[in-house]
Amino acid sequence: METINAYIDQHKDRFINELIELLKLPSVSADSAFSQDVLNTAEAVKKALEEAGCDHVELCETPGYPIVYGEKIIDPSLPTVLVYGHYDVQPADPLELWTSPPFEPVIKVTDLHPEGAIFARGACDDKGQMYMHVKAMEYMTRTGNLPCNVKFMIEGEEEVGSSSLSWFVERNQEKLANDVILISDTGMIAKDVPSITTGLRGLSYVEVEVTGPNRDLHSGLYGGAVANPVNILAKMIAGLHDENNHITIPGFYDKVEELSTEERSQMAKAPFSIDTYKKALDIEDVYGEKGYTTNERNSIRPTLDVNGIWGGYIGEGAKTVIASKAYAKISMRLVPNQDWKEITELFAKHFTSLAPKGVKVVVKPHHGGQGYVTPIDSIGYQAASKAYETTFGKSPIPQRSGGSIPIVALFEKELKSKTILMGFGLDSDAIHSPNEHFGVFNYLKGIETIPWFYKHFTELSK
Amino acid sequence: METINAYIDQHKDRFINELIELLKLPSVSADSAFSQDVLNTAEAVKKALEEAGCDHVELCETPGYPIVYGEKIIDPSLPTVLVYGHYDVQPADPLELWTSPPFEPVIKVTDLHPEGAIFARGACDDKGQMYMHVKAMEYMTRTGNLPCNVKFMIEGEEEVGSSSLSWFVERNQEKLANDVILISDTGMIAKDVPSITTGLRGLSYVEVEVTGPNRDLHSGLYGGAVANPVNILAKMIAGLHDENNHITIPGFYDKVEELSTEERSQMAKAPFSIDTYKKALDIEDVYGEKGYTTNERNSIRPTLDVNGIWGGYIGEGAKTVIASKAYAKISMRLVPNQDWKEITELFAKHFTSLAPKGVKVVVKPHHGGQGYVTPIDSIGYQAASKAYETTFGKSPIPQRSGGSIPIVALFEKELKSKTILMGFGLDSDAIHSPNEHFGVFNYLKGIETIPWFYKHFTELSK
Repeated sequence: METINAYIDQHKDRFINELIELLKLPSVSADSAFSQDVLNTAEAVKKALEEAGCDHVELCETPGYPIVYGEKIIDPSLPTVLVYGHYDVQPADPLELWTSPPFEPVIKVTDLHPEGAIFARGACDDKGQMYMHVKAMEYMTRTGNLPCNVKFMIEGEEEVGSSSLSWFVERNQEKLANDVILISDTGMIAKDVPSITTGLRGLSYVEVEVTGPNRDLHSGLYGGAVANPVNILAKMIAGLHDENNHITIPGFYDKVEELSTEERSQMAKAPFSIDTYKKALDIEDVYGEKGYTTNERNSIRPTLDVNGIWGGYIGEGAKTVIASKAYAKISMRLVPNQDWKEITELFAKHFTSLAPKGVKVVVKPHHGGQGYVTPIDSIGYQAASKAYETTFGKSPIPQRSGGSIPIVALFEKELKSKTILMGFGLDSDAIHSPNEHFGVFNYLKGIETIPWFYKHFTELSK
Repeated sequence: METINAYIDQHKDRFINELIELLKLPSVSADSAFSQDVLNTAEAVKKALEEAGCDHVELCETPGYPIVYGEKIIDPSLPTVLVYGHYDVQPADPLELWTSPPFEPVIKVTDLHPEGAIFARGACDDKGQMYMHVKAMEYMTRTGNLPCNVKFMIEGEEEVGSSSLSWFVERNQEKLANDVILISDTGMIAKDVPSITTGLRGLSYVEVEVTGPNRDLHSGLYGGAVANPVNILAKMIAGLHDENNHITIPGFYDKVEELSTEERSQMAKAPFSIDTYKKALDIEDVYGEKGYTTNERNSIRPTLDVNGIWGGYIGEGAKTVIASKAYAKISMRLVPNQDWKEITELFAKHFTSLAPKGVKVVVKPHHGGQGYVTPIDSIGYQAASKAYETTFGKSPIPQRSGGSIPIVALFEKELKSKTILMGFGLDSDAIHSPNEHFGVFNYLKGIETIPWFYKHFTELSK
């Protein structure tokens, strides 16, 4: 199967150009203004799966955006790999911070990527990583190297909570039956340090609205006499953390799994430089929950962050107004055993209790998902580990990620199979940020590594 | 001089239509997108002053928008009244809350205004109240009832701090020499309860910027590990008030004039219903500094309000991002003896001190002005009081306003004369809010009352 490298050498320009075409489609699922673009992207993915050799490729209707499904069943007695990915992307704003338009992909050379990196919204998250699987599939089908059955399930609402996917999975256990789920929607520690994500955080995302007076007021005539929704919202948000940056929501930590000293010291072995970290973000110091390291704060500990806030006059110049309403989007990252629905209720109860009588509060749950931890002794993990050893020459480091892929827990519940998270992105890829990019090296390395996973998984399953 | 009522009866339709034409011009000084409209409005005011009988009407150049000046000197030995007003208006947003377009004036009947009220941005603040003086001038010149000299000075930057006016006044003491300054840019207690504003609050308006990481970050990968500028800004804003809603800025209250029990009980006599107040704003309770009544909180006490806040993702749907920057516009209403420049410095020092090491803070002063208190034994006050007695049949109540007209203190300093604030607006006029309006009754009553001020002021000056 060494032919994979030859195949990549021969087709890599096309692999890159095909991804660039896909990245030109602004499939922003959070903004209905882009709905036609999201649908066009689903069509493009359908076409790509057909060309890669999948059978029965279809756009499966859902209450929301369609799910692109395709499969190649070569022998029912062989194991089946279910590949999951998403074709939707995060909103691109703030646009002014992009050095090139988010939906006009360009390849630029960076210090970290002398071979060049593709700059575009979705380059890494997740079009680029999803497309690695499509191209690996193309290689395996065209060169007779597909050792088992494959199913593809690519959704269009990952960035807004995957509610249609949940709906779809609950209704299609049979169709989606598999022996392992393979996902590339995470990162690796460094270009030369492969890693497999063994833990993901859960998520609860809410939007809050604080209403004071029934209309905007003149701050001179009413200032100091009525509750100002913006000041109150600020006070309520501040009240969500204590002086040690612990979250103050009663019951929030009740089910949080405390890692053993042994596990924490294992984690501490992952290569990490606090100075490089601070320098990369241009911050004088890190900030977070007392008693935990930076790597623990963003992986094994639950957190609460305001993702957006707005209220009053935010235009040019000055307006002496007291707004009638103030808003915030707040998300909590959860760790295994915390139930996102329960946490959402605890948040709503506590947040509302922080409001004085002078205002009304509405908490609107947006979406959420459970955390997840995968064992490292499964066949899937072993196969992935061997694949990395083959292509990187070293075994991958198991790591907990701070991010969330809510549907992973759903897959285990509905499809009864484990998920293997083979991520090829880097922290510096700036996913969800301006100037998102994906290294050409990472992209091609993914295409090279994936077929080895299929080979080892099939052999280990015998 | 009873002829004023006859003159109004004869011309009131024209008076209203002329004001409506003026209100159609969107002279928003805070937004440079409207700069041509602001200039057109200055031209319109110039024309209006000429038609009202002023001589030497001109647009005086300034570093910003022009000041419209006009005068009528009938006899240098007679006293001179300087009329001040402004032709710029507040931004109209949030537009969606207007029941009719802000710059398409319409007359609607309301419970409070059975004679109708003119709905438009600037209807009361200040085009409507400024134009009362123009029409009163027209009456006096055309009917030979002008008893003294008059100077008009109408500016176009009142809503953004009047910096050009300060520049102009400091350079034109001679041209602006007067015996009393007359302004209608405040309100009265009720349609049947005339009042004269004897105190104004000062103002310090700043914009703050909190910067965390050098780019927007994925809240899953970085959440809990770095200072989130929005959370930090919320915490810093919350820290500006203590549990009794006293402002925490060191030295903030040092120069605040404490009123005597006598003065406070005098204030308490003004007709006020806390239930009507809460009902009108649809709030369950009022909110403010412990130890003071609602009317004290919004007049004799200094306050701090956030007028606008923004940061992170504020679009439709959800985005799991940690913003690089968060912003707020914050204004403080000051009472006599507090120096706005000193307070601005104290704010900047204290606010910055509230920031953790993980963020950078910038405080940008927008503008400000001193508070003001006028004596009620001056000739000007007596003349105004008599004028109200003539047209309302009762003497006006002296009252402190929570609002600010920063240039009043400047006038006293540069022009050495007292200002009389004859306001005809009502709290319910919704100035600075959607659906601003001005009662036709109030508008015409102002035109009726003003000439009496001229008469009494001239006689009392003999």
